[in-house]
Amino acid sequence: MDDSFARENVGLMPYLVAASQVLGVAALAVTGAWLSQYRGGFSWDGPQQFNVHPLCMVLGMVFLCGDALLVFRVFRNETKRATKILHGALHILALIVSVVGIVAVFQFHKKKGIPDMYSLHSWLGITTFSLYILQWILGFIMFFLPGVGFAYKSRFKPLHVFIGFSLLVSTIATCLLGLTEKMLFAIPDQYSKLPAEGILANSLGVVLVAFGLVIGYILTRDEWRRPPLPEEQALSIDFKTLTQGESPTEP
Amino acid sequence: MDDSFARENVGLMPYLVAASQVLGVAALAVTGAWLSQYRGGFSWDGPQQFNVHPLCMVLGMVFLCGDALLVFRVFRNETKRATKILHGALHILALIVSVVGIVAVFQFHKKKGIPDMYSLHSWLGITTFSLYILQWILGFIMFFLPGVGFAYKSRFKPLHVFIGFSLLVSTIATCLLGLTEKMLFAIPDQYSKLPAEGILANSLGVVLVAFGLVIGYILTRDEWRRPPLPEEQALSIDFKTLTQGESPTEP
Repeated sequence: MDDSFARENVGLMPYLVAASQVLGVAALAVTGAWLSQYRGGFSWDGPQQFNVHPLCMVLGMVFLCGDALLVFRVFRNETKRATKILHGALHILALIVSVVGIVAVFQFHKKKGIPDMYSLHSWLGITTFSLYILQWILGFIMFFLPGVGFAYKSRFKPLHVFIGFSLLVSTIATCLLGLTEKMLFAIPDQYSKLPAEGILANSLGVVLVAFGLVIGYILTRDEWRRPPLPEEQALSIDFKTLTQGESPTEP
Repeated sequence: MDDSFARENVGLMPYLVAASQVLGVAALAVTGAWLSQYRGGFSWDGPQQFNVHPLCMVLGMVFLCGDALLVFRVFRNETKRATKILHGALHILALIVSVVGIVAVFQFHKKKGIPDMYSLHSWLGITTFSLYILQWILGFIMFFLPGVGFAYKSRFKPLHVFIGFSLLVSTIATCLLGLTEKMLFAIPDQYSKLPAEGILANSLGVVLVAFGLVIGYILTRDEWRRPPLPEEQALSIDFKTLTQGESPTEP
């Protein structure tokens, strides 16, 4: 990583990437500590099945998805093929972990007779996850399957990037809603007295927001976009001449 | 507006700008309808003082701030000075309306003996508003006061733009948290049965998210950035030679 960064002027990017990882790990650690310390820990068949939901969503939809968005910036001097495979691999992991988290909450609700899908948390969460599946399918078809024209890829890419980051933001907003719901269900009378659990849950919200902000800043700096490698540059000029499309600079 | 758009290829931008305005007005209308129909309407001294809070925050921090971010795209062929004055004027309105909304909720809490600043909604809200004030002061100093060097302005501008949009996103997340809190406080037993008020409040959340998404999409399209006018272009080249800074293309 250092070697890659050294070749060009990436400014504060390595420090911000490091900060994002510290925040991501902190979010996971605080989620785990909160659920273990105050909510009885984890189990699949027992009454703690609910707790699998927040942990899996923070790991899958926040941390792994966030990191998947960063790979084109961090591994900027690897081939595009290798970077795409890493991006896809992180999203496969994210998808598996998130499905486990979603199954956990629906199974828990069913066992306890708790109604589903009435809160803003559930509406935003299920919309975000459904669009994530759609983004997965379209991204796979457009960027992994052979035979899709370069002009189509170029046109689709900015939309793929915008939707990808929007889904991360929407996921973080959904987490904040989930935290608020949980506090008002679990400690309705104590929450307003700022107990340790309330402060911990609010702090988790702050860490999640900070994670999203740092990733958003890294992704929106024009000067930190992955430049095409020399061999891609040559290829892009050829393609451009042929198709009059855009060059394949990574967004 | 049409005349300006006609001069260059702005693609879907006019339609998306129109969509953002429809969504913004819809958010205001739904907020007003919800609070009038289900929460007893508005008053300053009475028990309905709380209701001033959501209405003012949606008007000030969401709708007016969102529109303030769009002016550099929409009025792309006006002078930079005129566009900056409109941007500042919308933010003055937004600031006044938001202060009224914040005073309303603190006064209401004080009268009723309800504790302040314990929820994630309040933490995120007060952080967002404090940073908004800071952004206001720094933006005013850097872009309105005379005497600030062009190189400093160029360096500060991308940060100003990033923080500005982040504050809009953070405001929308704060609104969603506020809606969730209000439902769980006001209709704790009925919310899970999807009553009309619950559906209305959730739908308001969806409209607010859609408003943020459309504005985010408009702002992040490179090709829709405000191009420098011919006279600014000439000036920018002169400055660039003198300072080796960036050109003053609007972000």
